[in-house]
Amino acid sequence: MKYDVVIIGSGVGGYPAASYLAGRGLKVAVVERHLVGGECTNYGCVPSKAIYHFAEALKTIEKVGGEASYKWSGLIEWVKSVVKESREGITHLLESKGAELHLGEAVVKQGRRVLVKSAEGAKELEAEKIVVATGTDPADIPVARFDGAGIISNREALYLEEKPERVLIIGGGVIGVELANALSALKVEVYVVELLEHILPFLDRDVALAVKTHLAQRGVKIRESTTVAKVERSGGKYIAELTSGERLEVDKVVVAVGRRPNSRGIGLEEAGVELDSKGFVKVNSRMETSAPGVYAAGDVVGGPLLAHKAILESIVAARSIVGEEAPTVDYRAVPLTVFTGLEVASVGYTEKELSSMGIKYTKYRIPLYYLSAVKIKGAKGAFAKILLSEDGERVLGVHIVAPNASEVVSSYLAVYLGRVKLKDAAFTPYPHLTVSESLRDFAEYILGEPVHLLKR
Amino acid sequence: MKYDVVIIGSGVGGYPAASYLAGRGLKVAVVERHLVGGECTNYGCVPSKAIYHFAEALKTIEKVGGEASYKWSGLIEWVKSVVKESREGITHLLESKGAELHLGEAVVKQGRRVLVKSAEGAKELEAEKIVVATGTDPADIPVARFDGAGIISNREALYLEEKPERVLIIGGGVIGVELANALSALKVEVYVVELLEHILPFLDRDVALAVKTHLAQRGVKIRESTTVAKVERSGGKYIAELTSGERLEVDKVVVAVGRRPNSRGIGLEEAGVELDSKGFVKVNSRMETSAPGVYAAGDVVGGPLLAHKAILESIVAARSIVGEEAPTVDYRAVPLTVFTGLEVASVGYTEKELSSMGIKYTKYRIPLYYLSAVKIKGAKGAFAKILLSEDGERVLGVHIVAPNASEVVSSYLAVYLGRVKLKDAAFTPYPHLTVSESLRDFAEYILGEPVHLLKR
Repeated sequence: MKYDVVIIGSGVGGYPAASYLAGRGLKVAVVERHLVGGECTNYGCVPSKAIYHFAEALKTIEKVGGEASYKWSGLIEWVKSVVKESREGITHLLESKGAELHLGEAVVKQGRRVLVKSAEGAKELEAEKIVVATGTDPADIPVARFDGAGIISNREALYLEEKPERVLIIGGGVIGVELANALSALKVEVYVVELLEHILPFLDRDVALAVKTHLAQRGVKIRESTTVAKVERSGGKYIAELTSGERLEVDKVVVAVGRRPNSRGIGLEEAGVELDSKGFVKVNSRMETSAPGVYAAGDVVGGPLLAHKAILESIVAARSIVGEEAPTVDYRAVPLTVFTGLEVASVGYTEKELSSMGIKYTKYRIPLYYLSAVKIKGAKGAFAKILLSEDGERVLGVHIVAPNASEVVSSYLAVYLGRVKLKDAAFTPYPHLTVSESLRDFAEYILGEPVHLLKR
Repeated sequence: MKYDVVIIGSGVGGYPAASYLAGRGLKVAVVERHLVGGECTNYGCVPSKAIYHFAEALKTIEKVGGEASYKWSGLIEWVKSVVKESREGITHLLESKGAELHLGEAVVKQGRRVLVKSAEGAKELEAEKIVVATGTDPADIPVARFDGAGIISNREALYLEEKPERVLIIGGGVIGVELANALSALKVEVYVVELLEHILPFLDRDVALAVKTHLAQRGVKIRESTTVAKVERSGGKYIAELTSGERLEVDKVVVAVGRRPNSRGIGLEEAGVELDSKGFVKVNSRMETSAPGVYAAGDVVGGPLLAHKAILESIVAARSIVGEEAPTVDYRAVPLTVFTGLEVASVGYTEKELSSMGIKYTKYRIPLYYLSAVKIKGAKGAFAKILLSEDGERVLGVHIVAPNASEVVSSYLAVYLGRVKLKDAAFTPYPHLTVSESLRDFAEYILGEPVHLLKR
């Protein structure tokens, strides 16, 4: 069969392009080897934010001295139902637009043909253009190989059939700390080990410290500059020996040390698609790979492994294919978000990065606990930080550590991008009893006399 | 004693001006007759959003089949503690900036003198300038006069010592529906009567209908085009007879029909301050009243009775006093927010208003349930509506009905104000699993091929 575009992968790197192109009247096939919606819908953003939402509600009940009773199985069933609904939403979207869905493993062949292998046999799809959006898989490590039982990834960790008593999470990146936050709220005893000096190592120390303090208050035990030396199975449990000598007996070991691009063994290199040293697909600003007519988008091209980055790349690839104007993705403007009660949302450069590049900047930092919206959530450690260029003309970085930061950052992003001037933000009636209204106060703080904050 | 500025009222119309002016080194006195922080901090925004936050958490627990147990007294104690902390935050802010706080009733005298009467006696403050920020009081109605027992306002309704079984709320405006939403989540049986055709009558029918459906699902009984004909006390209960003939026996009757400006009997008119027919203080765009040197801000000047509007007016008054550049408040750009689980945030014109003015517009409306962030919150009725001018050049109105709309609207506000173009919003990587990312999709939808939505 012949298609205008074959898209490999129906996750956030794939389905937006499919929807756009099919909507424009192109003949589009989407190949999916597992579940429609990919990692984000089935194993990442959606189930993790569902559990997160429930976990935060539990903490709120406790705030007034109350207690919630619920069945673990009821929680997991609900998570599954949300995921199913999200997945079906994407299927419905693709169907409505007229994109064809082909279930099976894709292998790219010479001449822009895609072989789709499934239990029912193999078929070949011919394509004018191909979009590779195969994503990443969780990586394990030599001392802790996924064993299909207790050494697991995020994929299993969000669907545990029984509540574990004690969990060790290897890796204090976004996946690790989000899971630690949620599980601890669900009264699981959680340990996190992070090899580097602090959790969330790609963020500034003050940001990481605020999250660490918050997690510690929830009972999470964090071991930094530490990793796992050995993991042994012992009956139904696992004994982990840390490099510090500490020994932990746990029910589950979640390995969250990184992701591996799904780029090998699917014919990419043979078809002339260049990979980088880590196996990520190399693309230009139009999301074209080195093979003519082959595009790529999402996790498989590397960069920040975030759904909203993948969506934008997918849109850029699709628009490039039909010759529509498309932006060059500004990777610095992609907010990094961490959903941990005290959420993190980060745009632009960190202080670390600016320092390492020798760029001078002025740092402004305000505590956010003055906001009643933050008091209600009991988030004492909340703050926001804006890094300005030395001449004060450009916002170089925005870092928000606060409840709802993931929503709030969209307003700050407009300031980072220069679309909203600080001077205008200072006089904007952002709604009261939100965290977004901090933008008014932060702008005032930078520009002169802050009305809701002490002097700087 | 002689001051540069005497500010009457320490609520959201007063304390921002006090903070700004004292911070600039002026000698500032703030007169407060009751509690620092005024209505918003003590009886409005803060306690209502605290209860709201808890109420939504309860609903989340129920979503997975769970149940929360808590003591009503524990809830109220917690609300009080949040309010106290917010109040003390304002006191601390004013003290740190060097503003003096005077407790007592203020009466304005000729020659910009302010008499402060308290239990300790009376004193007179002389002022170069005066800012009147005396706010509003809840209004009652002839058939239901506040009785200090069961016929109450928002002030008592948020601090009930015992959980009522059944409550009648007279008035389906913002205060009424927010209270209905929270109380129903707390398993109080709630009735709302609204005199006009639909609740939230100042909003479009589709917005009101979505909130009504949401409230009905929570068990709230809403009677529109209906009011109370008679209320009688009967033992510890109240029997209300509606104009429809329906009779209700309830524990409490909350009157939430409107607010009355605190502008009479405090010397304003005698000092040359003009009031409008409803008693609101008339001001110009610099917040100057008709009496030289006398400014006013907040609820007492009328317009939308919203905290963020009051804050901005207070800043404008303060900046005008010291001759700093100040914006003219654009009242259309003040978001109206309703915190009802399925929240409402509304900026600009409604369809009703545009139609009544004979202004033609193009309406775009998208359902928001396609967002996983909305699915997680189970908010089936969520939607967003953008009204564009006929030439497509100007956003005339934005109406969001969704969880977190109060935060999300700040991003949409930038579009309403023309600071962020739809074309740019369509290519902005707003974080995934938020409601804010709907802005990208909505912009795409208006401009052409929507990636996450069906065609229009």
